[in-house]
Amino acid sequence: MKSDAKAELVASLPSWNDGPRRAAIVDFIGAATDPQSLGYIRPEDRIACFDNDGTLWAEKPYPVQAYFTLDRAAERAAVDPDWASAPALKAAAEKDFAALLVHGVPGLKEVLGAVVDGIPVDDFIADARLWLATARNPAIDMRFRDMIYRPMCELIAALEANGFKCFVISAGGVDFMRAFASDAYGLPLERIIGSEQEAHYTIVDGKPQVVKGNVVALVDDKQAKPPTIQRSIGRRPVFVAGNSDGDFEMAEWATSAAGPTLAIFIHHTDAVREFAYDREGIVGVFNRAQDAAPKRDWQIVDMATDWNQIF
Amino acid sequence: MKSDAKAELVASLPSWNDGPRRAAIVDFIGAATDPQSLGYIRPEDRIACFDNDGTLWAEKPYPVQAYFTLDRAAERAAVDPDWASAPALKAAAEKDFAALLVHGVPGLKEVLGAVVDGIPVDDFIADARLWLATARNPAIDMRFRDMIYRPMCELIAALEANGFKCFVISAGGVDFMRAFASDAYGLPLERIIGSEQEAHYTIVDGKPQVVKGNVVALVDDKQAKPPTIQRSIGRRPVFVAGNSDGDFEMAEWATSAAGPTLAIFIHHTDAVREFAYDREGIVGVFNRAQDAAPKRDWQIVDMATDWNQIF
Repeated sequence: MKSDAKAELVASLPSWNDGPRRAAIVDFIGAATDPQSLGYIRPEDRIACFDNDGTLWAEKPYPVQAYFTLDRAAERAAVDPDWASAPALKAAAEKDFAALLVHGVPGLKEVLGAVVDGIPVDDFIADARLWLATARNPAIDMRFRDMIYRPMCELIAALEANGFKCFVISAGGVDFMRAFASDAYGLPLERIIGSEQEAHYTIVDGKPQVVKGNVVALVDDKQAKPPTIQRSIGRRPVFVAGNSDGDFEMAEWATSAAGPTLAIFIHHTDAVREFAYDREGIVGVFNRAQDAAPKRDWQIVDMATDWNQIF
Repeated sequence: MKSDAKAELVASLPSWNDGPRRAAIVDFIGAATDPQSLGYIRPEDRIACFDNDGTLWAEKPYPVQAYFTLDRAAERAAVDPDWASAPALKAAAEKDFAALLVHGVPGLKEVLGAVVDGIPVDDFIADARLWLATARNPAIDMRFRDMIYRPMCELIAALEANGFKCFVISAGGVDFMRAFASDAYGLPLERIIGSEQEAHYTIVDGKPQVVKGNVVALVDDKQAKPPTIQRSIGRRPVFVAGNSDGDFEMAEWATSAAGPTLAIFIHHTDAVREFAYDREGIVGVFNRAQDAAPKRDWQIVDMATDWNQIF
């Protein structure tokens, strides 16, 4: 890579400190765009996939969509007495995360479905957008939607500027994601991909609408991410970014290709500026992927030392 | 629209004859890109969705994927005695369309699933690509993949040149589509969308793969098209092109928006150069949509008179 191209790349990542992670990123992008390099990647193969929760924005104490869902659960329960007799729904309506989690994934799916059942997708996105305009994180006094990692936005912009197509591959619901992620990351709506609820086409008050149902059709996490990427993008990414074991398979699949690839994992090491967590808990567990990273040449980004700005 | 812009648009559609359909297309694109026009459409909303079979390439006597599937069914049956005892599979293996159709949609799904079960998506696409390199239409002596409608390729290119993003929304399988459609229409792989089979992530001989299963998860036709578009693209298209009742809901949904929209339907009227069919049969039935078109201001393209070239 020519030194002026390298300097330009470094300058486009001002929130990243000098060090091995920034160097790995700069070297990867520099080689990918240099036809003389062994690391060259044809433009049509420059596909980059980013996890969202914990990779592009904060996910603690709980992922943002959980707060939105429980807020709406409380509203629905207030006008629907049936909610009181369904344990998972009742826990959600009382905003009692611990009680809700007792019901496991089936309970979460039940709540996610019940909260949106019968809502046109357009209305759901408008509602989520409105909610995100003011909703705040209970642990750090900021709006959720301002808790977006600046270094990652710079990275997305640097990849896009170098002919990569960046996609968000989230375990969050695709419609919730689209309420903010396109604006937040500067990516077109069709590049925001996530978990899905069944939806159907119908005529509501004379207006054709796509309406959400109450069945979670896809939980886009862990081993579901590669098939979702294949179906949505039609090829294997050459760059992936994640932060937890939910991104293990995506990274494994991407980096098993014969050509040049790069996987990075964001390690939440900064209890002062954000949250510090990894192997413990139920949100953002970074255990298997953390152990695998050195052997597989996955880069672990240390938020405390690699980033001079977080938000 | 300025007259030179209009002349340029007309010049980009040389296979279209002068007439009301070309005029409707030229007026729509011209207005969409003119900020002074009432028909102006913001670049981020310029989403165009094209059906494939019968809209972008020929679909008679049967859709192309049917021939591919029956070829592969015959091969599988030759080495798997179980196929002989399953009536739908047996009919497919004998390439007996009439006998297969007796088993209806469940029979078709059974065959589609059985033919690909256990095949990595990468291998499936490579195999379909190889098959398409030589496979020929039994009624018109041409390769299937050369039976692509030139006027529609010109239209896609004209829309793309004017800031539209074109997507293919096919009832054909997404992986089969991706074996040719990206090259054929000049669109990136992620803009090729279609029916889906379940797939799962697994390690095959030490190599991470996405492998196709035997369950048809989505038949992307009729009332399924709007939810598929919403999920994949995140917004309503302003332009749609179809040719059959399978595209009715997509057109209804798109053209019900408040702003400027255009829907066109390709009417197969040319028995000399291609095939003539509409209200009868099982492939490409154009009945309900044909009746609705005049009332809804959908344009019906008469292949015989509107197109001076077909392939």
